[in-house]
Amino acid sequence: MNKDMISREPFPASRKVYMPGETYPVKVAMREIALTGPNEPVTVYDTSGPYTDPAIELDVHKGLPRLRENWVVKGEAGPRSPKMGGVITQLHYARKGVITPEMEYIAIREGLRPEFVRDEVARGRAVIPSNINHPEAEPMIIGRNFLVKINANIGNSVVRSSIEEEVEKAVWACRWGADTIMDLSTGKDIHETREWILRNTPVPVGTVPIYQALEKVGGKAEELSWEIYRDTLIEQAEQGVDYFTIHAGVLLRYIPLTARRVTGIVSRGGSIMAKWCLAHHRESFLYTHFEEICEIMRAYDVSFSLGDGLRPGSIADANDKAQFAELETLGELTKKAWKQDCQVIIEGPGHIPMHLIKENMDKQLRECEEAPFYTLGPLTTDIAPGYDHITSAIGAAMIGWYGTAMLCYVTPKEHLGLPNKKDVKDGVIAYKIAAHAADLAKGHPGAQRRDDALSKARFEFRWQDQFNLSLDPDTARSFHDETLPAEGAKIAHFCSMCGPHFCSMKITQEVRRFAEENGLGEEEALEAGMQEKAEDFKKSGAQIYL
Amino acid sequence: MNKDMISREPFPASRKVYMPGETYPVKVAMREIALTGPNEPVTVYDTSGPYTDPAIELDVHKGLPRLRENWVVKGEAGPRSPKMGGVITQLHYARKGVITPEMEYIAIREGLRPEFVRDEVARGRAVIPSNINHPEAEPMIIGRNFLVKINANIGNSVVRSSIEEEVEKAVWACRWGADTIMDLSTGKDIHETREWILRNTPVPVGTVPIYQALEKVGGKAEELSWEIYRDTLIEQAEQGVDYFTIHAGVLLRYIPLTARRVTGIVSRGGSIMAKWCLAHHRESFLYTHFEEICEIMRAYDVSFSLGDGLRPGSIADANDKAQFAELETLGELTKKAWKQDCQVIIEGPGHIPMHLIKENMDKQLRECEEAPFYTLGPLTTDIAPGYDHITSAIGAAMIGWYGTAMLCYVTPKEHLGLPNKKDVKDGVIAYKIAAHAADLAKGHPGAQRRDDALSKARFEFRWQDQFNLSLDPDTARSFHDETLPAEGAKIAHFCSMCGPHFCSMKITQEVRRFAEENGLGEEEALEAGMQEKAEDFKKSGAQIYL
Repeated sequence: MNKDMISREPFPASRKVYMPGETYPVKVAMREIALTGPNEPVTVYDTSGPYTDPAIELDVHKGLPRLRENWVVKGEAGPRSPKMGGVITQLHYARKGVITPEMEYIAIREGLRPEFVRDEVARGRAVIPSNINHPEAEPMIIGRNFLVKINANIGNSVVRSSIEEEVEKAVWACRWGADTIMDLSTGKDIHETREWILRNTPVPVGTVPIYQALEKVGGKAEELSWEIYRDTLIEQAEQGVDYFTIHAGVLLRYIPLTARRVTGIVSRGGSIMAKWCLAHHRESFLYTHFEEICEIMRAYDVSFSLGDGLRPGSIADANDKAQFAELETLGELTKKAWKQDCQVIIEGPGHIPMHLIKENMDKQLRECEEAPFYTLGPLTTDIAPGYDHITSAIGAAMIGWYGTAMLCYVTPKEHLGLPNKKDVKDGVIAYKIAAHAADLAKGHPGAQRRDDALSKARFEFRWQDQFNLSLDPDTARSFHDETLPAEGAKIAHFCSMCGPHFCSMKITQEVRRFAEENGLGEEEALEAGMQEKAEDFKKSGAQIYL
Repeated sequence: MNKDMISREPFPASRKVYMPGETYPVKVAMREIALTGPNEPVTVYDTSGPYTDPAIELDVHKGLPRLRENWVVKGEAGPRSPKMGGVITQLHYARKGVITPEMEYIAIREGLRPEFVRDEVARGRAVIPSNINHPEAEPMIIGRNFLVKINANIGNSVVRSSIEEEVEKAVWACRWGADTIMDLSTGKDIHETREWILRNTPVPVGTVPIYQALEKVGGKAEELSWEIYRDTLIEQAEQGVDYFTIHAGVLLRYIPLTARRVTGIVSRGGSIMAKWCLAHHRESFLYTHFEEICEIMRAYDVSFSLGDGLRPGSIADANDKAQFAELETLGELTKKAWKQDCQVIIEGPGHIPMHLIKENMDKQLRECEEAPFYTLGPLTTDIAPGYDHITSAIGAAMIGWYGTAMLCYVTPKEHLGLPNKKDVKDGVIAYKIAAHAADLAKGHPGAQRRDDALSKARFEFRWQDQFNLSLDPDTARSFHDETLPAEGAKIAHFCSMCGPHFCSMKITQEVRRFAEENGLGEEEALEAGMQEKAEDFKKSGAQIYL
């Protein structure tokens, strides 16, 4: 593995700051963006991990610092460790009224009270994916009363890609804002790829264990068995995977409901299980062995991500019987998992036109008793392959506003090929936009601070601050430089769009200065005293800033 | 002007078809996409004009064929011509119960009855921007009971860009789907640039005449006058501009309402008029001379696009008093214009978080009595300069669904610089997605046909059909080829994303074939006869397509 492949450059004008806990010795990493002039720095949520802290020496062969390794829950003797038959889930502690170090970390990260975090987890309305064997990950929470999160899928397939590329893709995705990573590898070296990703990723990692199980039986779905699957779960839980997508809701009787669909079954896991069910004419072993799966999950605190194997793959198939029948079963399984103190999130579609999105959210909340929803998009039209990060960011923003807790990104390559680094970044940024737009619409406290700081910088022609506050400073800066490359242009009181005469912001500043000098504020009539001031304004107004 | 600069290549597997009128000798241009196998071709709405018809010889120095030049309204003696004091607007004819050639053209283009088109225009709920001096433009309609339209802004500024580039940008924008073009040039050669654009653009063209008026007074807003503005309107109406943005709602008393905004006045036209109002301490001449403006508009059938000079430029300023006060005045002006048989659309914001979008639509419909709404985005967050085509496509799709008739695109360069050709295309495609997503959500008849055809092609591994049906076949094809460049891969029954073992579509086809062979359809229990078939499936299922 070439160390230089891994991106480590800090963000411009940014430094890592660490906020200490009160109850536990946690240090919560945030990014502080310095602004010019008298403007206060802006601190933002940061998923990039130790990579953007130049003070930390890193070696991909050793993996990231094992942040959570020695954390001890109040009242316990030593660090938690996984044990079959044991229960160490965050839900278990939350229900007992215990605030864990992870909960305090998250409370600081999100600017909320630890007790609120605990309560949301106890209700099952939020999930902290935190396999005890993945101590490298910084604690984060998925729930609709917290910031909307995004997931980035990576992973090789038999067709192409290397381990090195996948690790850099994971780090790269976190750099731009991925809150979790799913490793969807299906090719060779699947165990080793995952090991490298887990040891070097600062966010929770999810997988779809049926993929590896299928590799073990040479790609023949009908040769899968509960035993092979169970061993795969344990193998991956031991490695530290934080959440498993499990398509336990694909029941035998639902499969004919997909027969007249335009695009049938489009979930890989769903189609594998459908094939198995038909070949054996038996109910899925994921469903029949669900209790045993719970036992494995709770021993490591692996969270369930109950997969939507029958999600629609086209606008034509949206909100159909197959999809909603499965969702009802996922609701039933949620309650079973909760009984065993397991944490649960529910996966959702897919391809849904705008007017049918809300029905998905409403039904999910009802059927699954508010367990967090985790949706793929949804894509709001099928006609733009090559741009599905956009077709889906529209649906993602909306469903995020309606209450979805985590949005699974879609890259421009969706339906066409495997994403490269550029695609991963494009997908992550599109989804950071969707998630943040949802946070604003939900009125999340503090979400608008960054918008306001950036808008103020824009209005005051503080170009550097505008770039540095943006989701992607590199792109913002390079776009500006394309038309006005000179350094002087970055302090100019206009830009290439309008030129100096037409700059509305400049004119407004003149208008405002004039109004202020004459004591004219909102709601005041301009009538009084304006007539005699008009001449002054004509003389002073035009060239103030040039 | 270099002829080779202009893009003329037809779309892949596509040909122009011309549908004849019944009442008038119109020929409506559409694009027919041929599909492989027994699949019927798909005909799509086409804004690219004669450029994509290889049978038509074009010379940019001569301009496009003057399509509408000899069209005669039923019952009249000869072609219409502009005359001061006359009324030749589509609204005028519609109110008299007369279906014009433009209305028939539009009815065929949209798949609706001509009488429906006439009725919507007569109610003021739809507008046909069609200056009699711009006969090159193909008739189109803007109204919420029709397909959602998009506008692309082009235009040079004093800082850069040439006439050649701007003409090609206009043609390029139409190629990818722009329904109208706005020429926002502010630099030198403003008249000549516009002439080239008008003579070579197959869609209606809009302008903001105050920009040219300001150039005429050396950029000094306070030196503007009604006379200079009036002459500019006539000059541009004579050239053939189809709609004028007129910021007549920026009243003197509203200006102080912007004083405490984070980003003040961000509309160029709005800020120019605010400056003029303050400098003269008088009501805007756009407002005081509104009746005279109507007289010019109706003589040529230039449509009003009543500008939102006080639109918010940041999330912080969304839906504030200044914005809504102006909207109320735009409602008042709408009724004045209608009295004079003028066509009217209303411009809208801007920067609006998702939860405040609907209020804009509802208020606009109420204040402006259903005159078509034409919005810029809205952008749903301020934190992503460089990606504002996405921040705004989210808002555009939503407000389109709520009833906005035309969406003004935003390019990735918004807030940073002037768009180049790539930015224009990125902006247009993002907005075609938003508009189409809105058409689907509104249940526009026929909108889903293209989605269904593409999804069916996807499911059947007809890669070429999938590319050719997409909004951007070039990008879809090249993304696919990046991972699987071989020609053989385009008939492969899998792709690079999952590889052959994991292809859910392939597995589903196997499942479906099995179900069909055994007479199992939707709603049928799989129970009967399934047990004995399971073995058959195991034997036959796995490799059917390889």
